[in-house]
Amino acid sequence: MKYYIEKTTNYTFDEAVEKVTEELKKEGFGVLSEINIHEKLKEKLDVDFRKYRILGACNPPKAYEALQAENKIGTMLPCNVIVQELEYGKTEVAAVDPVASMRAVGNPKLESIAKEIRTKLQKAIEAL
Amino acid sequence: MKYYIEKTTNYTFDEAVEKVTEELKKEGFGVLSEINIHEKLKEKLDVDFRKYRILGACNPPKAYEALQAENKIGTMLPCNVIVQELEYGKTEVAAVDPVASMRAVGNPKLESIAKEIRTKLQKAIEAL
Repeated sequence: MKYYIEKTTNYTFDEAVEKVTEELKKEGFGVLSEINIHEKLKEKLDVDFRKYRILGACNPPKAYEALQAENKIGTMLPCNVIVQELEYGKTEVAAVDPVASMRAVGNPKLESIAKEIRTKLQKAIEAL
Repeated sequence: MKYYIEKTTNYTFDEAVEKVTEELKKEGFGVLSEINIHEKLKEKLDVDFRKYRILGACNPPKAYEALQAENKIGTMLPCNVIVQELEYGKTEVAAVDPVASMRAVGNPKLESIAKEIRTKLQKAIEAL
């Protein structure tokens, strides 16, 4: 099962981070956390990993609905959107598909919220 | 399918956050992100939600292995550990089960890494 929604872009890495943050905002998502994998792996393991950022995107009204439907769903929130540098000056942006990642939960109410969130994430990724 | 590993404790909320952070550290996890759901929902939606914290726990060597096995696995990293206030002065701590959340990925190499991570998360939760 495909567990992400992705797009390859011609943006530089920093442009891609900025642009997807803007598009997420248009769909009601704030970025609540940001993890710089490139820096973390350098710092902790002294390895050279490509530029790779994890953005934690949260749509507050939908997160609230999800938490009411499933009290431990915070184990799967927020929805991650990653930006990674590819070769030839290209950048890939990918959002988790919450329907796939939350399938193991087996809660029909949550699944319908996850579908709404997937639609919003798809719009943000397609707009890049 | 159960998608979390949980324990109910007699710790106060703040003690539980502190204690689980310590136990995660013993298993090689750093907390890379922290989301205060109670505050966020108050700020964004003006609703009164119980105390609820999402900690993003990352074991760098295992995260590196996972990223090499599956380039878009950042959509499911780090592993979340939640702390929430229950009634009667109790607190619940729950970690995502990465084997359950990553099942949709369908990558056997990743699954074996997820199993190792699950064992470490189980130890941290059991130690509370």
